[in-house]
Amino acid sequence: MEHMEIERKFKPGLLPPDLTSFPYHTIEQGYLCTSPVVRIRREDEEFILTYKGKGKMMREEYNLPLSREAYFHLLPKVDGYLVRKKRYRVPLENGLTAEVDLFEGELSGLVIIEVEFPDPETARSFSPPFWFGEDVTEDRRYHNSYLSKTGRVPE
Amino acid sequence: MEHMEIERKFKPGLLPPDLTSFPYHTIEQGYLCTSPVVRIRREDEEFILTYKGKGKMMREEYNLPLSREAYFHLLPKVDGYLVRKKRYRVPLENGLTAEVDLFEGELSGLVIIEVEFPDPETARSFSPPFWFGEDVTEDRRYHNSYLSKTGRVPE
Repeated sequence: MEHMEIERKFKPGLLPPDLTSFPYHTIEQGYLCTSPVVRIRREDEEFILTYKGKGKMMREEYNLPLSREAYFHLLPKVDGYLVRKKRYRVPLENGLTAEVDLFEGELSGLVIIEVEFPDPETARSFSPPFWFGEDVTEDRRYHNSYLSKTGRVPE
Repeated sequence: MEHMEIERKFKPGLLPPDLTSFPYHTIEQGYLCTSPVVRIRREDEEFILTYKGKGKMMREEYNLPLSREAYFHLLPKVDGYLVRKKRYRVPLENGLTAEVDLFEGELSGLVIIEVEFPDPETARSFSPPFWFGEDVTEDRRYHNSYLSKTGRVPE
């Protein structure tokens, strides 16, 4: 359940043309609080409460199970906008996976790529494939929690 | 942070006459959800988000830090009544501690004693002192989450 999250975020450069042939999950998430992050997420038919401690590239994360009923009870308590996206999982080299989020609704048109790493060294030495664009790991405008506040694609 | 909670609850029989001479903490807590429990608690100047899995005597519990600001952000999201109490810590034999909760506000007059145990065997073999009354571990009317819904002392 507890887990140290180590990830980097990127804007897309050139998307691989066959992205929609990869498997995807339908994600909907909302924030009860953003500092620390207390988030509810529905991923297909799985319902999760997530708590994230402070930090950008590395932070402590807890993912705790919710029932469907608990999820819908908590849903009206979220702040701002619900974030909706399709998450495509694209295999990379060395056993890594690119999670390519295609946002929907108010955030339609936004694409963010996330890669999670087993340790900080792998994260630092990661060489992004050609279809990745700008590294936005440190740019809070690309945090899902920030996007849930504005409901707008960053300019 | 993760912790398996093993506890028994009792109504008081005869309270030790000098209860107020023991140290106490001022607790205020509210529930965002009760199944599973997602609770915010203020204990003096400490602010905590708690998640509890299912179960009565034993259940998985996570206690995660909140800032004061996050606590007050989440406060309007709680359901029903805020539970307010003074918690006195009374030492028992064998290194155990009785947490004697004197409720306030709507629940004024209610007293519940909780004892937390290091393992199930100690919990089962526990012999309550003379000033403990009925064992209400299995009685959901004495759950704080239930009390937060009714805002009334059980009859």
